Parts: sequence; structure tokens; C-alpha cells
Amino acid sequence: MASGFFGDIAPIRYEGPESDNPLAFRHYNPDEIVAGKRLEDHLRFAVAYWHTFAWEGSDPFGGRTFDRPWFAGDMNAAKLKADVAFEFFQLLGAPYYCFHDADVRPEGADFAENTRNLEAIVDIFEKKQAETGVKLLWGTANLFSHRRYMAGAATNPDPDVFAFAAATVKTCIDATKRLGGENYVLWGGREGYETLLNTDLSRELDQMGRFLNLVVEYKHKIGFKGTILIEPKPQEPTKHQYDYDVATVYGFLKKYGLEREVKVNIEQGHAILAGHSFEHELALARSLGIFGSIDMNRNDYQSGWDTDQFPNNVPEMALAFYQVLKAGGFTTGGTNFDAKLRRQSLDPQDLLIGHIGGMDACARGLKAAARMIADGALEKPLTDRYAGWSGARGKALLSGETSLEGVADLVLRENINPQPKSGRQEYLENVVNRYV
Amino acid sequence: MASGFFGDIAPIRYEGPESDNPLAFRHYNPDEIVAGKRLEDHLRFAVAYWHTFAWEGSDPFGGRTFDRPWFAGDMNAAKLKADVAFEFFQLLGAPYYCFHDADVRPEGADFAENTRNLEAIVDIFEKKQAETGVKLLWGTANLFSHRRYMAGAATNPDPDVFAFAAATVKTCIDATKRLGGENYVLWGGREGYETLLNTDLSRELDQMGRFLNLVVEYKHKIGFKGTILIEPKPQEPTKHQYDYDVATVYGFLKKYGLEREVKVNIEQGHAILAGHSFEHELALARSLGIFGSIDMNRNDYQSGWDTDQFPNNVPEMALAFYQVLKAGGFTTGGTNFDAKLRRQSLDPQDLLIGHIGGMDACARGLKAAARMIADGALEKPLTDRYAGWSGARGKALLSGETSLEGVADLVLRENINPQPKSGRQEYLENVVNRYV
Amino acid sequence: MASGFFGDIAPIRYEGPESDNPLAFRHYNPDEIVAGKRLEDHLRFAVAYWHTFAWEGSDPFGGRTFDRPWFAGDMNAAKLKADVAFEFFQLLGAPYYCFHDADVRPEGADFAENTRNLEAIVDIFEKKQAETGVKLLWGTANLFSHRRYMAGAATNPDPDVFAFAAATVKTCIDATKRLGGENYVLWGGREGYETLLNTDLSRELDQMGRFLNLVVEYKHKIGFKGTILIEPKPQEPTKHQYDYDVATVYGFLKKYGLEREVKVNIEQGHAILAGHSFEHELALARSLGIFGSIDMNRNDYQSGWDTDQFPNNVPEMALAFYQVLKAGGFTTGGTNFDAKLRRQSLDPQDLLIGHIGGMDACARGLKAAARMIADGALEKPLTDRYAGWSGARGKALLSGETSLEGVADLVLRENINPQPKSGRQEYLENVVNRYV
Amino acid sequence: MASGFFGDIAPIRYEGPESDNPLAFRHYNPDEIVAGKRLEDHLRFAVAYWHTFAWEGSDPFGGRTFDRPWFAGDMNAAKLKADVAFEFFQLLGAPYYCFHDADVRPEGADFAENTRNLEAIVDIFEKKQAETGVKLLWGTANLFSHRRYMAGAATNPDPDVFAFAAATVKTCIDATKRLGGENYVLWGGREGYETLLNTDLSRELDQMGRFLNLVVEYKHKIGFKGTILIEPKPQEPTKHQYDYDVATVYGFLKKYGLEREVKVNIEQGHAILAGHSFEHELALARSLGIFGSIDMNRNDYQSGWDTDQFPNNVPEMALAFYQVLKAGGFTTGGTNFDAKLRRQSLDPQDLLIGHIGGMDACARGLKAAARMIADGALEKPLTDRYAGWSGARGKALLSGETSLEGVADLVLRENINPQPKSGRQEYLENVVNRYV
Repeated sequence: MASGFFGDIAPIRYEGPESDNPLAFRHYNPDEIVAGKRLEDHLRFAVAYWHTFAWEGSDPFGGRTFDRPWFAGDMNAAKLKADVAFEFFQLLGAPYYCFHDADVRPEGADFAENTRNLEAIVDIFEKKQAETGVKLLWGTANLFSHRRYMAGAATNPDPDVFAFAAATVKTCIDATKRLGGENYVLWGGREGYETLLNTDLSRELDQMGRFLNLVVEYKHKIGFKGTILIEPKPQEPTKHQYDYDVATVYGFLKKYGLEREVKVNIEQGHAILAGHSFEHELALARSLGIFGSIDMNRNDYQSGWDTDQFPNNVPEMALAFYQVLKAGGFTTGGTNFDAKLRRQSLDPQDLLIGHIGGMDACARGLKAAARMIADGALEKPLTDRYAGWSGARGKALLSGETSLEGVADLVLRENINPQPKSGRQEYLENVVNRYV
Repeated sequence: MASGFFGDIAPIRYEGPESDNPLAFRHYNPDEIVAGKRLEDHLRFAVAYWHTFAWEGSDPFGGRTFDRPWFAGDMNAAKLKADVAFEFFQLLGAPYYCFHDADVRPEGADFAENTRNLEAIVDIFEKKQAETGVKLLWGTANLFSHRRYMAGAATNPDPDVFAFAAATVKTCIDATKRLGGENYVLWGGREGYETLLNTDLSRELDQMGRFLNLVVEYKHKIGFKGTILIEPKPQEPTKHQYDYDVATVYGFLKKYGLEREVKVNIEQGHAILAGHSFEHELALARSLGIFGSIDMNRNDYQSGWDTDQFPNNVPEMALAFYQVLKAGGFTTGGTNFDAKLRRQSLDPQDLLIGHIGGMDACARGLKAAARMIADGALEKPLTDRYAGWSGARGKALLSGETSLEGVADLVLRENINPQPKSGRQEYLENVVNRYV
Repeated sequence: MASGFFGDIAPIRYEGPESDNPLAFRHYNPDEIVAGKRLEDHLRFAVAYWHTFAWEGSDPFGGRTFDRPWFAGDMNAAKLKADVAFEFFQLLGAPYYCFHDADVRPEGADFAENTRNLEAIVDIFEKKQAETGVKLLWGTANLFSHRRYMAGAATNPDPDVFAFAAATVKTCIDATKRLGGENYVLWGGREGYETLLNTDLSRELDQMGRFLNLVVEYKHKIGFKGTILIEPKPQEPTKHQYDYDVATVYGFLKKYGLEREVKVNIEQGHAILAGHSFEHELALARSLGIFGSIDMNRNDYQSGWDTDQFPNNVPEMALAFYQVLKAGGFTTGGTNFDAKLRRQSLDPQDLLIGHIGGMDACARGLKAAARMIADGALEKPLTDRYAGWSGARGKALLSGETSLEGVADLVLRENINPQPKSGRQEYLENVVNRYV
Repeated sequence: MASGFFGDIAPIRYEGPESDNPLAFRHYNPDEIVAGKRLEDHLRFAVAYWHTFAWEGSDPFGGRTFDRPWFAGDMNAAKLKADVAFEFFQLLGAPYYCFHDADVRPEGADFAENTRNLEAIVDIFEKKQAETGVKLLWGTANLFSHRRYMAGAATNPDPDVFAFAAATVKTCIDATKRLGGENYVLWGGREGYETLLNTDLSRELDQMGRFLNLVVEYKHKIGFKGTILIEPKPQEPTKHQYDYDVATVYGFLKKYGLEREVKVNIEQGHAILAGHSFEHELALARSLGIFGSIDMNRNDYQSGWDTDQFPNNVPEMALAFYQVLKAGGFTTGGTNFDAKLRRQSLDPQDLLIGHIGGMDACARGLKAAARMIADGALEKPLTDRYAGWSGARGKALLSGETSLEGVADLVLRENINPQPKSGRQEYLENVVNRYV
């Protein structure tokens, strides 16, 4: 490898469940056919540029722990980072990556310099994609790290910040289109508030609605075919983030007429922080018709901040991928690892090991989910449970023709006095445990 | 008093802040004029029949602690309970009350008996209201305590339960209309799930949408003029409640075409359990145009279940009533105490003392909020902060005529490079502390 | 079976991982030898009388859902309950059970009647144990459900309640001894407070210290050979429970001179509610020398109350049993299922299915843990990580002979400037995933 | 002022509750006599060097927002920072300050350079203290920010880190002694673990015990008269911090024989994160005899990380200072503001405003607490509630002479059958609201 960063590590291969080689896959065999499709095509793994290459290991109580040769912050460093990144994608066999503008280019003095820097990197990425076959799952703009965004981007009290942010999104959509990105993501990092005392909630929501409409209009104008995705998160960094969870985003899209234009990119850790299970958010998005993509990671249930760990709990992942498969699987979306090493995991090979473990865990989860679906393990009991709704009475109740007083008459006339039936939760939990 | 339950306690009077009489108001003077309106007309206090008269003091680890003469569960007991309830409303000077069917009538063997029992009690309430001048803020149906509802009411897998619930709501709306109730509330006590493994989320949401449409259609048919209110709650008793929070309810209403028909009854404790401040939920409902009424209580921030305590933290209440006043105050809504005594508070006079403390705290909160509004204490800094949006550039950005590429051109041309300004949170917090 | 409650269900057998019989074990083979011991002797499963036979399915928003023929509350019902319980233990093949006095006998009018009722049931249990070979893992007294305990038992403001509770514990220890119980447990259900405003914390802790000393003195006097166990829980039903977690209990035992007399019974759900992982509490108890027994269940991480579900997440259980095995395994302790059916799981066979799933999951967890230990999978990296402490400098630093200024001199003299090494967390997580 | 940083702001004065000057005290009048002592002598306010002068406004999603002229990180910057700090203490009228070594001196290349840098600053501080009369409440060492401490300081797997940390503490105690510091604090920033998989809990606790003994031995050797304080925190930055809460620290001190040598510095935000109220931690420390000092701030109850906001909720603070006063007030301890501006509060005067609001809120809280104590408002009901324990039976039960079987005999003989009495929580809450 050119950069030498990963020493003599060979590309990661599938060696099967009995392998104890930490630098091999035990469950992720890209070419394995599951439910009629290659595993790679099901999972569509992407590496997150920010955590894997830009994060320095700092936390609120300590600074940089990692010691990477590309942390200098100038264009040369950005190029070295790009070299290492593509080496990493190839070593790992990751078909996709994702990035923010700020991950890949040095911060400039103004918008013009930012744009030039980004374009220079896009030139490089374009070549590297062609050389390696690695593709862009999605691009995005970092509208939260720079101090200009401290009070929000689209929802800033200062219209100049809205303008700067909008201009930045334009350049990032342009970059994403040029690189063949399959989606464009908006994470409202600081779209929210620290205190209602200094916040005009209504005004800010309207600003955000207008901003998103600008983005959607532009997408159509330039013929970008990818999906626009919003990534819900309930809080952190702000006290309250407007894109709280899937249900909140849905209401927002409905209010601003965008529910057919925009889908959601759901992150396990953000679901947890909002008080939901990951599978809840996935199931709800499926139900509302806005399921798009996932940010795969895991949050410590007992840490109240975004821990962004690599996923490893297979039983939980089986339930998540069950929802993904029930939603028809990914179309433009994929499985992006929005996961970072623990800050004590200093070694280059830790980067590979974190991803390998996550990919293996995803593969186990998806394969278990596929088997549950093939067996109708959960579907059959579900059909039985709701069977009454397929009968005449059930259908009549849901038709527009029934009235409340009509139902009351019916109950009285037939002395309807329903008896509860077992919900069989433990039985179903045991069934799932047969598969994981 | 006829029942003798409260002994020789005299009606509670306003004695002013210096009073140390535990059975007097220190801040709630119903006739005090605040912002042009009597305090009683601002606050519109209601007593909750369930907590105050029906709750027995049990918790998950212990049974009944209270020893009330009306706990027998037959019609005589229900009548005694009604006597004591109206004595209580008068002693306290509460202008309103609220009830579920199951609070006021004995449980019958079937729907017909339930209906007869309810009607017999409504006859009594009608007389008592006329005699005392006490009014009904809202009525509601208990669709969660009986075992038939263990898997939900509208969202039950069994259509017979849906029918039984719908019939029950009809009788409760009828009762509410007859008693001149100003609102009708739906709390989806078990509309949600324990596990996704046995739940068809999409189907259940559609059932709930149809159910609510039945209710709204019926309201119009019978000419009920009150407001239909949904009460959000995120979880408990179920793992996930569909009416999670205000934002979720809004999306649901939009999906089923009901956002102009239904408003929300917001509870402090439910807001907290959903990870929101009470004032957030109020501000959001105001912004979305669905603010209706409040269930006033307080949840222990550190207990993960619904503690339903009487409110007492005046600084927090000032912020809540600030939002209520900014929303234009209550129209049909009011301040219902969805609060219960601690289960060790055994004495009849504890019932009065809990409410007195809550009413005084509300009065202090509302008066502080009114003074802040009169002074423009928070409004002026807010106007300053967003002033840019009233300028030409701000207006243009939000108009439908701007495009993303137009904004990018603007930023480039004028080299817009915004500098952040202080958000002044501590200043504003100190300002609030001048008023509380 | 005599009672007929379980119909014609045959005793549960081990059928191996491929079985899809919901009434068979797939992983728990009692006679399988793991790490030199039968699985049954490792796990020492116990059924909890309260959840399995006494709990009625109520929650804070609804009453009884189960419909058991023994819910009448008199002595005949208690006898029928005992019949069904022992039938259940045999069907399941559970070697142990656990009970509170209040689970097994009707509530009497006073202490004397309670004692007589308990003794009558103990007579029955004694015979049934002899007939079936089922043994008592531990007995305990319910000092929290009756209203007399609403303000605590040992920590009650009324010394008469302390006396009543102490007398009750005496009868329960007597019963436990007679039945050959291997431990006696104290769970301080209401030893804590609702508000500091009415609580003398110091006084109550001293009361609790004296109470526990009374128990320990009595144990020795009557020659009870079992272990006295405290069960930590942080809150619920009270705002704050004094036996918050393992660390708190340890400090309490040290203060009252009991750290060699009393150990802890650790519950997964209580650990979670205290903000700890289950394995943390186990590891800490091991480190402090007070590990005793476990209450196996699972708490929903996202529900802030005690959900007491059957365990099913095998990766988590492997880590828990790893700690149990590292602590040397159980001596007098065991794996009590402090788990209850979901209240919608109405059928008798749900009781079996819940336990079967839990026992299988425990067996998988323990077997994975045993393999990790046999391979040194976690131990070898740990030894390497701390190797420096086995060197001369490490030993000197921990010896009593070094002084702070001596260390400072050393650092200066040798210019000690330590370089961090990778903590390899992801590697170790992947290693664990090889075993589960 | 020399530095010019605060422009022409005049020293902050007490102007009384009617003042609307944001740069004046409304409640904190240092010379006001409360319960026989000047307010300044009760509260003993200290400014935290780290938050106020060293923190740059970064959070996990964004970098520096503040723009201070002393952020260069060299010795000249450190001197400018010291100038501004002492100007600030004088403007504010703060009698005390607190610092970590890393707050005040540039980071050196090794221990020797760190020590030299610290000593140079201590020379400056010594002069400034003499000139201004400002005193040092406590000093401490930052053993968590530098990457060498990423796996802990005393509890590091590498003994060299233990040595480096111990040497650093020596220099910081020396500095504290030289500056007349009244306490020395240890906050175990990374004494804990990220995962048990790579952690030897027992070994690390023993390391920490030895470390603390080294500190205590050194204190006595050099004749430092201040108090050694541990600051509990449950998690963040690590998954689990060993000094979890007051109860945990107490058990640790008992285990390592230090409960008479070391006290606790209790922070509101850390109490909250551990699931406790602030007043609980204060009351428990008082009960255990280890109350030392407080870190005053406020944590957002709904943010799961350390928000370190300035305190402003007066009713809560009254309950906290009630505990402080009941503990006898501060001896060597004080009220350190471990609070930071929100990162959007950019202006120099925001620094003053944050502290002014906090000091006013503390003053209101303490004055309310003092009035409650003077009136016996809470004490009298408490005495009544526990009156039984002063009687003969109560005393006998707690004496060492009673036995469990003796109590059982007594209950039987006298048919003790206690009846519960109201706990009067709502009454007491209303009483408190008379004072705040």
C-alpha cells in the first residue's frame, strides 16, 4: 500500500465461523446468497469518513489521543487522509463510504475557499473511485462544527448563517452528484435550541421548512437522482433537536409538503437517545413510507450521550434487519457505520477490527432475519392474532360507513363482551432466540 | 356538610402570602385581576375525579393505603363518592372537575349495565352541578383498566374490543355533552405495544386513525361544541404509546386529516417522560396550532414512571404559564390537576392541602408570567435576536422566489461570512429570576 | 397431575438446539458437564413463588388480567396454589424455589394469625419437598405490601412497625430453616424515603443497621447455616431505597460491622435501574467479597421501572455468568428467576414457556462463559495489560514503603513519561462474539 | 483594570431585589447577617478557573466558540489569563477561587517542565492573592485531559502513569499549601473503566486505595492543614467512575481505612447523573460524617451528560443549603461554581452575569433555609413523626440487649398491630413554598 499506514495487513477475507483470526470475517461473506441476493448487495456497507479518519479521540474531558499523520489540517494532510481512506476501503472490502465536506477538506477562510478546497478533493475522490470501484453512499455538509453555526444553520437567528449554510449545501450536493452518490443526507446538528428563553420556535421551524424545500427544488433542477434523507436525533449537542425522531420528522415533512420527497436515515444510537428501540424507528419509518437508510452503531443504553460504538449485539441486530427486510431492503440506502473507535483504541489495526466486528455482527443479524422471514416465524402468529380484522365485522368497522352510534347499537344488540387472549410475548421471544 | 368526610373544615379562603394557615390560599385569589382577567378565569382549575376520589393508594409493590368509605364498588358507594366529591369542589372553590366513566360508576357485567350505571350517575351530577355551580371541564372514557383492554382499545388485535371501546366512547361523549362539558379527552392508555414481535404497527395506527375519525364525526353529528383533545404520553403502561408526544400526535393528526379537529391536552409528567420540558410541549403545540388544555402535575425527574405529584416548583410553572399566555390563554381548556396524593398522605385534609399547594403554585407562576409579558422582559431580547429576518435579505431568503444556487451566488458575491453573537442565556435566566 | 391446571403437558425435556418444540429445552441439559460440573449444579435454578403464582397481572393502570383458580385469598386457595406450584417445579425440572411469607399464606388479622397461617403452609411444603426432591433456595419476608409498611419496616418512624417486621422476619427465618433453605434474603422494599422533608436519614440508617444485626445474631443463635443476603435496589417503590446498589450495601455493612456476615443477592433489573450493568454489580461484589446469589431477569433499558422480564439476551448473559464463574460459581446461591410473564400472557403454558426461554438463555450464557474461561480468551489479554504491576517498580509503588515525594523524585530522576497503549476494546468485543 | 478585558465594568454591588441592573446583586449582600454570620462567610463563594478562564466553548460536535486573548497556550498567555482572572475575582467580589494545575500553566514536555511552569504561576498567584485578598479554596491536579491518562491515573494498567500522577499530585499539594489553600480535591476523572472486558476491577480499586493513602500520608508529613476531598461522579467521561456517589466513596474510604481522613466535595450535576437529588447526597454525607464542600452548578435533568450550568432554581437550592446548614455549615469548604457559560454566551460580561445569577440564587436559597431552621418549620414535624423512638419501647428495640425472638414475643404478647399515620408530604412541600 502506498501510505504504509496499515503496514503489511492483507485485505480482509471471509474465513468462516471457526476462524480466530482477528483480521478475518467470520460471518460476512460478500458473495453468500441470502434470500436471493448477495450479502454485499443486501447490506451495502459504508465507512464513515468522519469517525474513521477525522475524529481525533477527544471527549469533553480530554483532547486528542490518536496520532495520525494527517491531522495537520492543510491540503497535503487532506490528500494523505484520502490515500489512507481508500486503502482502508479496499483492505476492508467496503463497497461504499460517506463524508461531510469538513471531513475531507481543510477549513478555508470563507465560502469561496471552502468550495475550492472541496472541489480539489472531489477531483481526487473521483479518480480513486474509478480506480478502486468504491462508491459514495451519501454526501453531506457539516453545518454544526464551525462556530458560525453555534446557534443553528437553517434555524439561526441570523439570516446570513442561513445563507452560508444553504450555499454550502449546494456545493455538497454538487459534489455528491459528481461522485455518483446515491443519497444526500441532512443531519440538523444544531437545528434546535439550548433554551426556549432565546428561541422563536415557530419562526425557526418555518426557516427549516423553507431550507429543506430549497434543497429539494435544487435536487430536481440539477437532476440529482439520489434520495434526500433527514437523520433524526433528539438532543445533543443541543438541549432539543428539531428532528427529534422519525415521528417528529414525519410531522415536519407533512407540514411543509415534503413527505414524498424526503426519507429518513435512522441511527441506532439516536433512536436509543429518543427513548425508542432501533427497530421501533425502522418499523415506524416503514409504516409511514419514509424508510431510507441506516446509520449503524450502538449506544450504551446507560450513557446519556451519543456513544457511537460499533454494533455487536446480534440478537438486537437481527430484529433491526428484520425490519429492514420487511421494508423491502435498501434501495438507495445502505448500512453506514456511524461508529467510532473507543478513544483508547490507538492502533491502525483497531480501525479494521472495529469494522470487521460490526460487519460480522450485521451479517449474522441479517441472516437470522432472513431465516425468520423464510420460516414465517413471526409472521404466522401475527396473522393469527389480527385475523378478526379480516372478517366482515372487522372490515365494516374500518370502512368509512360505520358511525359511532352504529357501533354502539351493534355492541348493545349483540352484547359484545370480548375476552382477552394471550399475547404470547415470551413464546415469540423464544422463537427469535432459535435464530440468533 | 352532608357526608361528614371532611369534618368541620371550612371553605378554603384566600388569606394572602403572610398566612401560615395550611387550609388557606396564600397566592390564589380567584377575583384578583391579572392581565385584564380574573385569576379564576385564567386558570380554570379542575379536580380530577380519579386521583382524588377513586385512587386507593396502591403501587406496584403494595395495595390500598387509603381508607375511604366509598371503596365498596357498588352504586351506593358511587353515590357517596359523588357527595364527597362535590363537597370537595365547593370547599376548595374549584370551578371545574373531570372524570372517566370508570371513576364515577360501578363496573357492570356488560356494556348495557355500564351504560345504565353511568347514566344514573350523570343524573346525580346534573343536579349537583346545578346546585353548586361547579362545571365539567372534560369527560373521558377509561379504555385501559379493564382486562379486555390489556392489548389496547382502538388498536386491539380483536375488532370486538374496538367496537366495545367505540361504544363506550359514545356513551361518554353523550354524558359529557349532557353535563355541559367543555372538552372531551382521549388518553390512549394502552394504545401502543409491549413488543413489536406481536404487533402490526401500521394496522394499529390505521385503526386508531379510523377510531378518532368516528369520534369527530359523532361530535359534529350531535352538535357537541366542546373540543376533542388527545393527551400525549410516551410510555407506561406500555413499552411504547402511539401518542408519544405533541410532535407525534401532530403527525398522526396530519396523516388522518384531523389537525383542524383535534387539539392536545398536555401533561407535565408526560412531557418529562418523553424527554421534553413541559414548556417545550406547550410551545410546540402553540406553534402547530393544536394547544388545548393542560394536565397540571409534576413528575420526579429521576423516577422513570408517572409520579403524578402536585406541582410546587414555581420557577418552572412560570415558564409553563408563560407559554399558555403566549398561546392566548385557555379557551375551552383549563388547568386540570392530574395529581395524586403520595400514598402515605392518608388524611382527608391532605386532599385539600395537596390541591391548595398546587393552586397557589399555579397562581404564582401565572402572575409571574403575566408580569414578564407586561414588561416585554423576554419578548424584547427575542425581537432583537431575530431582527435580521425582518430585513430585505431575510425576507428574500424565506420567500418562494429564492433558489439554492441563487443563495450560493449571493454568498460568493458578497462574501457573506457571518460572525456569531452572544445568545445571552444566563442573562435571560437571571431576568426570569427577577419575576419568580 | 392432581390439579389439572397444566392440562396434559408432559415434563419438559432437553431436545437439543434443533428442536422447535416450544415446550422443550434446546440448551439446558441438566446433566451436561460444563467445566467439571453438571449444568444443573452450576445454575441452581429457582422459581419465584410471587411472580409465578401470586402476581395477578395488574399494573399501575389496570387490574388483574390472569384468571387463576387460587386467587381467592383463603387457606384453601393457598393450598391449591401450593399444589400447582410443586406441579410446576416438577414439570419444569426446577431444583429450587423461593418465597415470601405473603406469597404462600393468606394475610391474617394480626401477627399471630399470620404466623399460624405460615406454619400451616410450611407443613405442606415440607411434605411436598420430601415427595418431589425440590428444595428451597431462599425464604424471605414481605415487609412492603401491607399498608402498615407504607413508611418502611425497619426504617419506619413508628417503632411498633419495626417490632412487627422483626417478629415477622423471625418467623420467616424459622420457616426457612425448617425447610432446609440455603439462604435467607432481605429486600428492603420500602426501606428508603419518598421525600427528605419528612425523613431522618441518619436515624433510619441506624434502625436498619440494628435490624440487620438482630437478624444475624438470631441466625447464629438458632444455628441456621444459610447465608443472609441483602438485595440491592436503587428506587421504586420509593424515591430512594437505602440498599441502592452493591457499593452502597458494602458501605452500610462496613459501617454496621456486618461485611463478613452478609452477602448480596444481585438482580439484573435492579442493577440497570441503578445505572450499572449487571456484570458490573457482579464484578464489584466479587471484588468486595460479598457475592452471594442472583435474581435473574431483564429490565427494559428504556423503561424506568422494574419490568422483571424473563432474560433472553444471550451475549449479555454470557458476560454475567462469566463474572459468576470468576467468582467461583455459586456456593449457597443460585439463579432465581425474579421474572414475571407479561400481563397479556394469560395461558398456563406461558408460565412454562417463559421459564424455558430463560433457562435456555442462562445455559447458553454459562456455557459461553465457561468456554471463554477455558480458552483464557479474556484473561490472557488482561494479564498482558497489567503486566507492569508485576514488575519491581509496580510492586514498590503499591507497597507501604513508598512515599509521595519518593515517587516524585523517581519520576523526575528517570524522566518517566508514559506512552499510552491501545485498550483494544473492539478486539475484545469481537472475541466475546466468537463465543455467543 | 490593567488587562482591559472587561472594559469599563465597575465592581458588582448589591442593589437589592428591586434592581434591574444585570450587573448588580439583588440578593447577595456579603455583609448581611444571616443566622449570626455574614452571608459571605456562610457561602464562601469560589470561582472555578477551568470553566471561567480555560474552557474554550467546545462540545463533542463543535470547536472553540470563545475568543479570548489568552488561548495561545504559552507562558505569556498564562500570565494574561492570571491577570484577567484576578480582575474578575475582584470585580465580582468573590472571596475564593479554585484551580487545576493544567488550567493555569502551559503543558510542558515532561514532568519537570510542568513543575517549573506551575511554580512560576504560583509565584504570580502568591503576589496577586496578597494584593487582592482573594484566597484559594482548593487546588487540584488535572489527571484526565492528557492522553497519558486515557486509561486512568491511579487506576492505570501502567504503573508509570500511576507514578506520573502521584508526582503531579505532590506538586499540586505543594502549590496548594504554599497558596494557603483550605482544601485539596481529587476528582477521579478517568478512574473507572470503559469496559470490564479489559479491566481488573479489584486491582484498580487497590491501586486507588494506595494512591489515596500516599496523598494522606504526605499531607500529614508536610503539615498541610486543609481537608482532602474526593469528588464523586458516576460516569462521564468513562462508562463507570469508581467514585460513583457519596455512598460508594464512603464504602471505599472504609475499606482503605480513610473515612476519618477524607471528606467529599459534592456537585449538584454529579448527584443528578447518579440518580440522586443534590440534597440527598448532602444529607447522606452529613449522616456519614464526611461532608466537606460543594461544587455548585445545575445539570439539566433531561440531558444525560454533565451540563455544568449556573444554578438558578431557588426552591431546589433552598433544600440544598438547608442540608448544608444542618451539617453545621462549611468549615474549610465553600461554594465553588463548577459552572460554565453556555457556549453561545460569548461576551466578557456574560462571565459576570452567569456568576451574579448563581450567587443571587445561592443567597436566596441560603436565606430561605436559614428562616426554615429558625422557625423549626421542618424540624418540628420531624420530631413528632419519630417521637415513638424516644419512648421506652423504641429505645429498647435499638439497644443491643433486644433479640429477634424477644421482639417476636413482645409483638405476640401485646398483639402489636401498628396503624399507619399520614406522612404529610404535601403539607411539608407547601411549608417549604412559604419560604422560597
